[in-house]
Order: sequence, then structure tokens, then C-alpha cells
Amino acid sequence: MRIAVDAMGGDYAPREIVRGAVEASRRMPEDIEIILVGDRQSIEAEMARCDASESSRLSIFHTTQVIAMGEPPAQAVLSKRDSSIYRGMELVKQKKADAFLSAGSTGAMVAAATLVLHRCPGVRRPAIGTLLPSLGRPVLVIDAGANIDCTDEELEQFAVMGRIYSESIMGQKDPVVGVLSIGGEDLKGNGVTKKTLERLRSNPLVNCCGNVEGHDLFKGNIDVVVCDGFVGNVLLKTVESSSRAIAHWMKDEFTRNPIRIFGALCLRGALRVMKKRMDPELYGGAPLLGVNGTVIITHGASSHKAIFHAIRVSAEAVRNRVTGKTVENLARLAKRAAPQNTEG
Amino acid sequence: MRIAVDAMGGDYAPREIVRGAVEASRRMPEDIEIILVGDRQSIEAEMARCDASESSRLSIFHTTQVIAMGEPPAQAVLSKRDSSIYRGMELVKQKKADAFLSAGSTGAMVAAATLVLHRCPGVRRPAIGTLLPSLGRPVLVIDAGANIDCTDEELEQFAVMGRIYSESIMGQKDPVVGVLSIGGEDLKGNGVTKKTLERLRSNPLVNCCGNVEGHDLFKGNIDVVVCDGFVGNVLLKTVESSSRAIAHWMKDEFTRNPIRIFGALCLRGALRVMKKRMDPELYGGAPLLGVNGTVIITHGASSHKAIFHAIRVSAEAVRNRVTGKTVENLARLAKRAAPQNTEG
Repeated sequence: MRIAVDAMGGDYAPREIVRGAVEASRRMPEDIEIILVGDRQSIEAEMARCDASESSRLSIFHTTQVIAMGEPPAQAVLSKRDSSIYRGMELVKQKKADAFLSAGSTGAMVAAATLVLHRCPGVRRPAIGTLLPSLGRPVLVIDAGANIDCTDEELEQFAVMGRIYSESIMGQKDPVVGVLSIGGEDLKGNGVTKKTLERLRSNPLVNCCGNVEGHDLFKGNIDVVVCDGFVGNVLLKTVESSSRAIAHWMKDEFTRNPIRIFGALCLRGALRVMKKRMDPELYGGAPLLGVNGTVIITHGASSHKAIFHAIRVSAEAVRNRVTGKTVENLARLAKRAAPQNTEG
Repeated sequence: MRIAVDAMGGDYAPREIVRGAVEASRRMPEDIEIILVGDRQSIEAEMARCDASESSRLSIFHTTQVIAMGEPPAQAVLSKRDSSIYRGMELVKQKKADAFLSAGSTGAMVAAATLVLHRCPGVRRPAIGTLLPSLGRPVLVIDAGANIDCTDEELEQFAVMGRIYSESIMGQKDPVVGVLSIGGEDLKGNGVTKKTLERLRSNPLVNCCGNVEGHDLFKGNIDVVVCDGFVGNVLLKTVESSSRAIAHWMKDEFTRNPIRIFGALCLRGALRVMKKRMDPELYGGAPLLGVNGTVIITHGASSHKAIFHAIRVSAEAVRNRVTGKTVENLARLAKRAAPQNTEG
């Protein structure tokens, strides 16, 4: 299995990306090969710092251009054909890589994926699905930032893609799907969420539980929550940031005096479990659903640890055939839905 | 000081509301009188359960109608003139109460406040400002749910009202104001947030730091974040829910075996502080800014504890003259801004 990693994307690129990739090449199963996509010289310099060099498990694919975070995505992708993002997508297209992962511009990743890999048949817009831990089953938030403004038709498709992901990857039978809104009643929400709810209620492919509020997200009884990428992105970054703040407060309070430090020692095991649950870097990496290829997006501030885990997530996505299953199930569902004349 | 409390609003009304009010009448300073607005018979029944009866500190204002959560707000307010929400606003208007607090329909509260108390001169739409704890100074999120869709002009006004609140109530000099968005760069965001950012950058009344991401919320270096009420509401409910989930996980992990329980005992003090910081019920109650009167909104699922704290928040708002200061400062700012022809 070959995973292409954008060495030039992200706030701490190339250093943290290369470090994460080197770590993955050392610690992950032997059947995983990593291809670092980007400027050879910079990548080699960072690899040298980690005492690493090119090998059968870690190679470099040289590119000369970089798409910066602030650039208008579509334009940048079209004009920079030798950028790490464009070339990474090409590697997937040409089957030289099984997945492509980047911490670079989300907009450029979505544009390049659409341009190079194309959308799955019937899909209007690809969407990012991010798993959020909860008190029960994890909940898939879709879209987590690929589409800033969405129509109700698009949100309906996200619901269908989310259902497929939950069913085929998470193994959830008849996943419960909700619309993220500001109140439980059907009347609550904005124009788009209200229309989306109507659509989902009459869509035979979706087991719709109605509106879902921020309150309900962590209860663990919902499998998929649909929202536009603006709301999804704000929500996920806020959750990450709030758990970081809580972890910080905990550390602060638990080390205030010797008795507390002793108490914290007794709770070592528990704190390790808590940390694992709350550390957003361990979740790093969300699939872009609805394109013909495995594309994983992780956020700009990714550290080497986040990159390591995003590579792990990419490998799981390849192993679980996320893309293949999405395409197959979209087609199957479209067939099943055809008599009812429902899109999906 | 007299605080009117809507006994009929909220998921657990009247029981939890009455319990919270009784508790407040017992535990809060003697100069605070509470007026429970709602159906006398139901209120008396709940008061009896708490061994309370009408007194100089706790009285009942009888009303015959209730606005339910699902009702279309404007219609409900217009047709139910003897509802607890309408009458509560009237008590403020007639200066029979210094503040009105409700856990009922936010939409109906905003509609009634606008209808009965009127907007402050120059204000297009009132907005809810909610304080979020952070690692540094708390951050005011405005709007937290009064307006589902907002224009850039409206968001600009929220920024000005937020600035006033932060300055005059929180005592923050030259508060830092940001626009909630999905990336730090000025180009990131949706149509409305980008236009809002442009407006704030050229508004001499606002010290604008640019876009603020979910990541930045808890860093403690931002005083005011503007967003539409849909995003703000989802965000705040999510933060509450995530800290509840974390508290739940902690309890679960910390009580798993005798050593851990012993460790948790050593950390008793720390855990108490953490709980206080993380418990959303202690923050209960957010002011509706931009109307001529002190109106506090607290969320539907409020327990008696949340109501108790919302009454405390209401008393603070009255004591700090939130409303008076908003009106005075809006006028002062409008004057100062007039030569530059800036709205606000």
C-alpha cells in the first residue's frame, strides 16, 4: 500500500510533515510505503535531521510548486500543475499511490480532487466526513469544511454519503442521521436546514432522526450529522480547542501541590486514557467523500504526531475500501431510489 | 432590585424554574426580589413542594397563556398578550421589574423584547451575547442565537455592541474583536463573514483582529467574536455538550478501581475547581443586547441550578447597568463615527 503525503502543505511544513512521515515509515506495518510529495531539497534536509534517508518505505516525489493557504483554490490548482497538491492527486489517479494526504489548503485539495480524480457518479459536491468521539458511538460530522455554502440537495447527498460511511466503514446498521440545527423541533433552523430536514424525512435511503442540536452531539445515539462546511469546520475546531483548554486546566490544577501531584500519579492510567480520548491530534485526518480516490485532509496546524495518525487513518481508509464502497453503494442506492425518483 | 422570572418557559418548567427562584430568594442578597410570572396555581403547587410561599422576596404575577417552544415566535407574541413572556417584558417596560429572565423560546423572547421594549436607537437587530471561559480572558460570542441569518451590517453592529459590553461590563480596554470564520486569512469565510471583516477593518470603533477560528476561541486573547445566531448557537451548545462529555468520562475513569478513587480524593479540590469551570449551568443566562431593558435568556434545558445562576447573572446585569451603558455608548459611538459616515 502506497500513501502519498503532501510535504509542502500545512503551517509547519515541511518539518512536521516529514517528521511524521519518517515516524510512520519506522513504526507502521511493513506493507505501507510513504511517498513524500514536494521539493526534494527541503524534504531531504528535514529527513537528514531525523537521520532518515530515502528507502523502499520512504521515497520522494519531487515537485517545484507550492499552493499557499491564502491562494484562491481553483485558480491555484489550475495554474500550478507542478504543485505538491496537484501531483499528489495525479499519483492517486495513475494508481501510483493508494491515497493522498495533505495538511495544506482544504479548498485547493477539494478543487484538485474534483479536477483530477473527478466526483463519483451522481455526486454534486464532495464533502469531508470527520468522526467525533462521543459517550456512545462516534458521530460523523459531514461536511467538515469542503463546502462553505450548501443547498438542501447537497446536504441530502452528504446524508447519503454519511450513511454509506457509517454503514460500510463503522459497521453501523441503519445509521441514525440528523440535521445540525438550533433546536429539536422541525420548525427550528435556517432556510436550508429546514428544507434539508424535509428532504431527509421523505428520503427512503436515510433513517432521519430530525434536527440535532450541539447538545446532542456527544450523547452517542446519532451516527451522522449533516451541516454545511462553514458550520462543520467551526464546530470541529471549537471542540478540539475546548478539549485542549480543558486538558490545560487539568494539568494546571493537578500539579498545584504535592498532594495533588500524588493524586494525579494514582490516576496515571485514567489520565492516559482521557488524554487519548481528548487529544484531537489522534483523530487527525478526515476522508474527502464523493471523489474517485482516497483523499485524506488534515488540518493546517498538524504536528508530526497529527501527521503520523493521519497516515494511519489513510491506511485504514485504503484497507477498508472507503472509496470503492462509497461508489458501489451510491450506485446501488441510486438504483433503489430510482422508482421513487429520489436523488442520491 | 426586582427580577421577573418566566415560570412557564423551558423544558422543565414550571418545576425547575420555581425551584431555582425559591433557592435564589433564600440564598441571594436581601435587596433582590423575584417575581415569578406565570400560572398562579402551577407556581403555587411547585412552591409548596419547596416549602415556600409568597413573601416580600418572592411574588407571583399571574398570567393565563404560555408560548410553547415550537410556536412561530412573532405570531405567538402578537396573539398571546397574556403569555408569561409578553407580560414579563411589560413588567420591565413599566419599570415594575428591573430585568426579565426566561428559559423559554428564544425567538419569542427576542420578538417580545423588540415589540414591547423596542430596540435601542440605531440598533437593527438585538443580539445575544454569551461569555465563554477561556485560558485567558473570557470571550463574548455574539450572536448566540437571536438572529438565524445575518447581514454584514448586522454583524458589524454586533461587533460594536460586543465592544461596549466588553469595555463597560468586563472592564476590558480597547477590546479585541474578531469575526468567526474557517481560516485566519482574510480570504477565508463565506460571503457574509468576508464582507463583515472588511467593514470591521475600516470601522474606527472596533479594534478588529481579523478572522477567528474555532481553534482560537479558548486562547484567551480575544474579547469579542461575532457570528450569526445559527453558528453561535451551534457553537455554544457544542462546547457545553463537549465539556459535559469530558466530565462524564473523567468520572467514569476516576472511579474505576480503589487506587484511582484514592487519587481522585487527593484531587478533590482540583476537581471542584475544574467542575466549576466546566459546568455550563454556572454560566446560565446571556443578555439580549440592543433593547431598552435588561433581558436575560437562558437555555431551554435549564435546571433549577441553571436558573439560580441565571438570576445571579440578571442581578449583575442590572447592577452593572448593562442596558444603560449600551444605550449611552451606542449614542456616543454613533456621534464619534458620524464624521466618517460609519454606521454603528
